[in-house]
This record gives sequence, C-alpha cells and structure tokens, in this order.
Amino acid sequence: MAAPLKAVDGNADRACDLLALMSDLGTRARAAARVLALAPPEQKNRALEAMERAIRANSAAILAANAEDVAEARAAGNATSSFIDRLTLTPARVEGMAEGIGIVRGIADPIGVVTERWQRPNGMSIERVRVPLGVVGVIFESRPNVAADAGVLCLKSGNAVILRGGSDSFRSCRAIHECLVQGLREAGLPEAAITLVPTRDRAAVGMMLSGLNGAIDVIVPRGGKSLVARVEQEARVPVFAHLEGVNHVYIDGSADLAMAKSIVLNAKMRRTGVCGAAETLLVDRAAAGKNLKPLVEMLLDAGCEVRGDEAVQKADARVKPASEEDWDTEYLDAIIAAKVVDGVEGAIAHIQDHGSHHTDAIVSADEAAASKFLSEVDSAIVLHNASTQFADGGEFGFGAEIGIATGRFHARGPVGAEQLTSFKYRVRGTGQTRP
Amino acid sequence: MAAPLKAVDGNADRACDLLALMSDLGTRARAAARVLALAPPEQKNRALEAMERAIRANSAAILAANAEDVAEARAAGNATSSFIDRLTLTPARVEGMAEGIGIVRGIADPIGVVTERWQRPNGMSIERVRVPLGVVGVIFESRPNVAADAGVLCLKSGNAVILRGGSDSFRSCRAIHECLVQGLREAGLPEAAITLVPTRDRAAVGMMLSGLNGAIDVIVPRGGKSLVARVEQEARVPVFAHLEGVNHVYIDGSADLAMAKSIVLNAKMRRTGVCGAAETLLVDRAAAGKNLKPLVEMLLDAGCEVRGDEAVQKADARVKPASEEDWDTEYLDAIIAAKVVDGVEGAIAHIQDHGSHHTDAIVSADEAAASKFLSEVDSAIVLHNASTQFADGGEFGFGAEIGIATGRFHARGPVGAEQLTSFKYRVRGTGQTRP
Repeated sequence: MAAPLKAVDGNADRACDLLALMSDLGTRARAAARVLALAPPEQKNRALEAMERAIRANSAAILAANAEDVAEARAAGNATSSFIDRLTLTPARVEGMAEGIGIVRGIADPIGVVTERWQRPNGMSIERVRVPLGVVGVIFESRPNVAADAGVLCLKSGNAVILRGGSDSFRSCRAIHECLVQGLREAGLPEAAITLVPTRDRAAVGMMLSGLNGAIDVIVPRGGKSLVARVEQEARVPVFAHLEGVNHVYIDGSADLAMAKSIVLNAKMRRTGVCGAAETLLVDRAAAGKNLKPLVEMLLDAGCEVRGDEAVQKADARVKPASEEDWDTEYLDAIIAAKVVDGVEGAIAHIQDHGSHHTDAIVSADEAAASKFLSEVDSAIVLHNASTQFADGGEFGFGAEIGIATGRFHARGPVGAEQLTSFKYRVRGTGQTRP
Repeated sequence: MAAPLKAVDGNADRACDLLALMSDLGTRARAAARVLALAPPEQKNRALEAMERAIRANSAAILAANAEDVAEARAAGNATSSFIDRLTLTPARVEGMAEGIGIVRGIADPIGVVTERWQRPNGMSIERVRVPLGVVGVIFESRPNVAADAGVLCLKSGNAVILRGGSDSFRSCRAIHECLVQGLREAGLPEAAITLVPTRDRAAVGMMLSGLNGAIDVIVPRGGKSLVARVEQEARVPVFAHLEGVNHVYIDGSADLAMAKSIVLNAKMRRTGVCGAAETLLVDRAAAGKNLKPLVEMLLDAGCEVRGDEAVQKADARVKPASEEDWDTEYLDAIIAAKVVDGVEGAIAHIQDHGSHHTDAIVSADEAAASKFLSEVDSAIVLHNASTQFADGGEFGFGAEIGIATGRFHARGPVGAEQLTSFKYRVRGTGQTRP
C-alpha cells in the first residue's frame, strides 16, 4: 500500500494525475464502505485487535519514521516548539495509540442497533435502525496519532475513511497507516476501508472538500482555526467541526465560593490549549463584592493573565483592561477575559452575543437560575456546577471521539461512534396496502 | 403584514431593495426563532388553535384570493390541467388545511424532550435534550396548502420559518399566511415566526439558498424534480429533500402470489404521482414461471403500461421493451419497468445500481431473504410484505411531514416535527473538575 513519498510531484500532468489518483481512492473507499456496512461486529473487532498488536509490534518503525519527520521539520527552521511537540511521537504516545484502539474495540457497536420500534394500527411494525454514514474524510494537521484515532473510530462505526494528514507528519502517518491496513487484512476486510492519501500535494485537500464526486459523505477537520475555517468555507459536503470554543463560566450570586474557585481554576488552567477551556469569566454583580476579588486573585496567582472590565480592574491592580475584541477571543492560553454581569439574564445575553455555541457553565446554588441557564444558553454543551473541560467524548462516556461539533445538524457536541451513523426505517407487514 | 403584490418590481434599485428586504426578513426570523425556542408547548398550541379557527373563518377570503390566482394562471394559457389542479383550492381543501392544523396541534411537542440520560462515574448526570433547529426555509411551487402545512409543523417544532411559494399561488399563500399570523398574534408569539416572502421576484429564491447571511439553517424544497435539483445544486445550507423516488418492489420466489398481486397493484396504481409509488417491478427467476404472467397481466389490465426485459415481454404481447434508461426512471405515471432477476441477491444488486435510496419493498415468505433485503438495501425506507405507498409521515404515525429526505444526514425518510429538531447536552454536577 505504501506509495512513494512524492508520487505525483514534479510532473507536467500533475494536477490531472492527482485528480485521477484521488478519484480512484474515492471509488475504492466507496466500495469498501459497502462491505464495511454489512461487516459483523466480531469482524471489525478482530481487525481492531490486530491493529492494536501491529502498532505495538511496529513501535520502533513508527518512531523511526517520526524521527525523520521531526528532523525535517526542525531543519526547515520555522517550526514552533509547540508544533514540534504535537508532531513528536514517543514510546508512551505510541502505546497510547495502541491503548486507544483497545478502548474503541470495547465500545458497543452502534451499527444495526434498533433505536425505536413501534406498531401501526394496521399491524405493520416500524423500526428505526442505525446504519453507517458511508465515507468520512478526515483532514488533520501535525498530530500523527489522529490517523489511528480517527481511522479506528470510523471502522467501528462501519464507515470507510480517507485520511489526509499534514505534510509534516507524512512518514509517521504512513507507518501508522500500514499497521491499520495489516489489521484490516488479517480480519479479511477491504484495505480501502482506511485509506491514507499517498501524497503531500496540498491540492488533494481541495479535492476532498469537493466530495470526490460524491465519494465522501462528510468531512472532519482536525487542526487549528485556519484549517477549520477553510474547510467550513469550501466544503461541498457536510462538516463536523467547531471553529472555536469561546467558553464561559458564569458565577451566579448564589454560588459557593470554594466550588466557584475550584471550577474556574480547572476550566481555565487544567489545560489551556484544549477547545473546552474557559475563555471568559462572568461574575454576578449581586455577589461581586464577595466573589470577584478571590476569583481574580486566584487566577493571577496561578499565572493567568486577567483582562477585565472596569469593575474587574478594580479588584486587583494586575488586571489589564479588556478591549471589545477580548469578549470574542479564544485565547487557548493562560489568559482570561472577565466581566461583571447582571445576574443570569446578563450572563445569557453576553453569551448569546459573544459565545461560539460550544460549552458554557454556570456555578450556582440556585436551581431556578441553573435551570434557566441550561435551557436558554444555546450551546452544544451546557453545565451546572462542573468544569467546561469535561467537553470531551471520553469524559461523556463515548469511549472515543473524532472531534467536537458546534453545528446544529446531525452531530452536536462530542462526535463518537454513535454520531458517525445514520439510520433507516425497516417496515415489516403481512401484506398491508394503503387505502 | 400583507405587502403590496409587486412590492419591489419595476425599480431601478430592484436587486438592492430585494436584498435589503430579504436580509431584514432573515434577521427578524432569527430573532423570532430565539423566542419560539423557549415558548412553552401550551403557547404554541394556543397559536395553532387560533390558526385553525382563522382558516375556517376566512375560508371565503382564501377561496376568493385563490380564484384570482387560478384565473391568472388560466389566462396565461400555458398551465397544464394537473398544474391547475394543484393550484386550485376548494372548500374541502381549505377544511383539510384546518384539520391538518388540528392534527399538528395533537402531536407530542418534541422540544425539551430528554432522549437519553446517564450518569458518569464521577457523579455528573448528562442529558441529551431536543432543541429546535432554528430557521427553516421552505421553497414550494403551486400548492398553496403547503404554506399552512409547513408553517404549522415548523411552529410545533419551535422553528421559525420563511415560506416562499410559487408566484402563481401568491395571492392564495398571502391569504393563508394572514390566518397563520393572526394565530401567532393571538398567542403572543412574534409574527416573524412564520414569514411569507412578500414578493414574486424569483431572485428571492437564490438569496434564500445562500442562507441569508446565516439566518436560514436548513432549506426544504417542495415541488418537482427541477426545483429540488436546483436547490440541491445551489444551496449553501443543509437541505432536507429527495430528488426522486425510483422505488422497487421485488417479488421473491417464496412470495404468496395473491399478496404479491395486491402489493404490486397498490404500490404502483393507488396514486401514481406520489414519491412513494413503485416504478420498477423485480421478479425472482426461481418462480417467474408461476408469478410473472399473473402480475404483468394484472398491471396491464389495470391500465398500467409495462416496459419489460425479454423475459417479461414473453409474458404478454402488450409489454413494451424496456430501454436502459427505464431502470433509472421515476415515471410518476401509470407506467412500470419490469425485470426478472436472480433471487434476492440479484434484486439487491439491481437496486444498488438503479435505486434512489427512497423506498424499496420485498414480498417474500422466506424470512432469511426478507432479512437480507431489509439489511442490505440502502434506502431510507425498506419494507417487507407491505406497499411502498406507506412512505409517508402520516402513515408512519408522525402526524404530519414536511417532506421525505433521502440524504443520510440528520433527517432520513419522512421528516416530521421530531426530525426538525437538534439537541444539546445538559450536564449537572456538584462541583466536579477534570483531573
């Protein structure tokens, strides 16, 4: 399956060759999807078990391929340290990939599950049953482990997948992909069930976004905001994604201060670079006198920059003034915007104007305020008395996720195996005709 | 609310005016959607009750407006009789609209329903709860009753709707729309919850397909194949639709002939113009000697043209030869394509090559064959021993439908109130933070 590193580079007919290559990948993925849709759970699990074994057995080869990728990225000279960190695999990260495959094997198989069943007065029985979506296109950036994570989640949910990794991680992805293909082969499943685009040519991304003549049913971008924005702009097929997580924690006047401190610190500082991290703190004016100073001091003492409105600035001299832009910013860093608002109504209004429909939390001892917040804030995930950092498929109990979606169609919130399915209606009769 | 008939016609700044008008409609619909999303079921039902009353009370005005539309269409001279029939309202059809509103009022309110609920090991409880989609754009052709049917189904599901009817039915739609607005007003709901585009300018359709700057979340086209094709081609937002229903009835060798005849006759001839009508008959070679001739004669005797392969042609001299094109054709008429296939495998293969993923049926006394057909045919609705004409939201027990979708995302099969919803996750904790 491994193609030469620059299969279609430096060729006068390059664009044409690439189009033919990608169309062929699409056709084969579509054919594989039809086989996968009918594959029994045991066969998919046999493949997953073999993949887990192959990743462990080929750990050294994966690490060697990754070392080449990292050396090339370093030599190019313009990679940031966080980029190099995302690109780098370690023995522990490879083991983590293998363990991840084991976790996906353990998830309940969503395909064929009957989610509703009812009988009509004329005696017909109707069932709504889960079926795969078809072919998923995954476009990701530097993290090579996405190849394994996304590949096996698509397999579990009966979908074929076309993976297009960042060109910097090309060799790493290829080594990982070979292990996945070995697993498919051992289980007697078509190798095109998990395809890695075998070229670094960036034009391949545009072709995937066009849907490859109907061969791709949905695109999942995994990467930074510019990738997601491009995908949302250009894709001619549905996209499961979130552009950003401008997430809020609102501290109601009724909140227990100790709980508020613990949740705010966790929501902002546990990991600042994840999409579930809090970016804005909203404090109820009714108890600002009691709550504002301790919350702001705690954040500042933990090394978090605080950008506040006038009231927040008065709480501590280290607070910087917030600009209008701050209310709309996803920092993904140890920075938080902070504002005093007029109760739960004020919090909801602020979130409506500035939120990104991702994840928002209220800390409150008042059930009515909490209930109002949970019902009126229009985000994929709304929490009462818990940290926004729970915005994660694993934390939801989905076992694994391919990403988090903020759209309102089909998938919303963490996208796990179940969200990668569609459904159909099975009707059983005894000769019924329609009057 | 009623706008002049040609509000923005004959104006040098026409395109610009229209864009401003449509943007304004979008903004007001979006604002109304936020109110509707939180409206209690009783308030929506009060509006529905008032609408039902208003339709009955204004029956004469609706019929008078419709008579003007019909007279104009007749005067234009190029309308077919079936077009005039679709356009024409009668006292019975107006009463049918009122009754339809009553039926929608009786449907269970889908909004706020918790569809899943589970607890995490750390004590957090997670609920998946239904919320509206937002703003639905409905683009329809000559049938004025779609304004009422689609308008009230969107209201029931907490969505605002922008209705754009065919220009031939403009006066009829306006009269119906006034009744709907009266109902909204009586219940204290925003009038922009159900908006009728107040112009016949066709450019409004293109603007709706662009999504009106994010104001429209989903488009539902109701009309012929050319309208649906245009919408699927141009829309920049999700579309719930089916392009066509090339539906199959497969008569397995094990089928009871009397049941097969009854189902085939109903599936093809009950109403030939509906999307659930059968268009192709597939007969198992194993019992063709017994079944083919009676089925074909029955259809011919009922006035149905039969276009068959060689084996079918031999069954009766009246059978015409089928061309390759016939296998892909949705006749919507008293014509059927007929073919002999090799068992359920052959039927599945034919449907995979020629079907439109709408509705397909098997008639069989063999459970294994039926089960294989139901699992392997990739259509929104698959039936065993029942007529394809059951492809209908009412027949499914949904109370009403806005259409039938053949896409794999979000809504598939009949699109009722429940399918016009999205969901969010409500998480309740007691101070949990993520380790």
